Amino acid sequence: AIVDAVARALADGPLTGRHILITSGPTHEPIDPVRYIANRSSGAQGTAIAAALAGMGARVTFVTGPAAVPPPQGVAVVRVETAAQMAQAVEAALPADAAVFAAAVADWHVVGAGASKLKKDGSGKPPALAFAENPDILKTVAHRPDRPRLVIGFAAETDDVVRNATDKRARKGCDWILANDVRPETGIMGGTDNALTLITAEGAEDWPRMTKDQAARRLAHRIAEALA
Amino acid sequence: AIVDAVARALADGPLTGRHILITSGPTHEPIDPVRYIANRSSGAQGTAIAAALAGMGARVTFVTGPAAVPPPQGVAVVRVETAAQMAQAVEAALPADAAVFAAAVADWHVVGAGASKLKKDGSGKPPALAFAENPDILKTVAHRPDRPRLVIGFAAETDDVVRNATDKRARKGCDWILANDVRPETGIMGGTDNALTLITAEGAEDWPRMTKDQAARRLAHRIAEALA
Repeated sequence: AIVDAVARALADGPLTGRHILITSGPTHEPIDPVRYIANRSSGAQGTAIAAALAGMGARVTFVTGPAAVPPPQGVAVVRVETAAQMAQAVEAALPADAAVFAAAVADWHVVGAGASKLKKDGSGKPPALAFAENPDILKTVAHRPDRPRLVIGFAAETDDVVRNATDKRARKGCDWILANDVRPETGIMGGTDNALTLITAEGAEDWPRMTKDQAARRLAHRIAEALA
Repeated sequence: AIVDAVARALADGPLTGRHILITSGPTHEPIDPVRYIANRSSGAQGTAIAAALAGMGARVTFVTGPAAVPPPQGVAVVRVETAAQMAQAVEAALPADAAVFAAAVADWHVVGAGASKLKKDGSGKPPALAFAENPDILKTVAHRPDRPRLVIGFAAETDDVVRNATDKRARKGCDWILANDVRPETGIMGGTDNALTLITAEGAEDWPRMTKDQAARRLAHRIAEALA
């Protein structure tokens, strides 16, 4: 508690008095009690962003799926597992001055994921699963009348990174997109570095490869400028 | 290194000179570069079994999927991600005096999991995925002419635990099955306790609920008796 108080005192900064919402980590969508569909996300970049924003004085609500890295100190942590739970937690955390959607959210969930383990039926074919689209959290929040002044999405891409991310920014109605190339050979997924491109109304700005902590601080400063 | 040497010296025991193969943790089957299908398994029970066997002097090869708990000290660790990789690692680790298949292995993998991220196509439907059955590691090893003298499988069940596990023992051709009830309300999956039923040619033996460490030591003693 003393450490927290000291951290808060030191954290008085350019974002003091602001509430910022961050989503981070993967979602897990159950197939049955023992199987699920997951997105690859260690939660490292979202966690670093939350820490950087809290370090600049923001009040941070951190909505996290089952991530590999622990959540940062000094933020309000809301743990969820599925995309639907994340959407609910985000809605409950609004209003906010800014929102950063860094989580890797599943696009679909399995309809009627049951209480019994699915069994092989001898046909060599998997059981037929019915899928339904998950709520689009970024798009929904960006279109709310009481939306945060700054809504920031992420685009993890493997092809045509800038074009796909620019399209995504328009389609979702968000202010900024942070795009990165997550092909395995980049080593970004699960690694300590990131190489981001910031897509805004003004165009695309390539950031050099840097650590995820450095990228987080750079983003936090940009957010502070935008909210000033 | 000193700690390891001390551990080995202390570990001279009833399983000294025996090689035991253990699989543990989940497998992850890629859908595309950012998504995968996983089984729920913390790796806690497999890790505890490996530690108990090493503690009784066995030389342990520990083939593990991406588990939540770190592998134990004093064993040879082989890290894999998919069921196919696990099958290869198991084959490479044979011969062994006993094998304990504690991993939660995916029954199917996605055929042609690609290098590009799958995109929503606007139809509201997920991309069609083709699945193929994974190698049945337990059954394959149990039917090898040079099979370990003692082949032990696990059965994580949600219904008719003993009947399903007894059927599994016959179907796989293994010597023992350790069955447990993994319905979420038991708290076993991801928890510290386990409640196992040991299925052998002689029938079903219910073990009381105990910690996973205690269950591991009980199993290790039974293995030592069987190999004596």
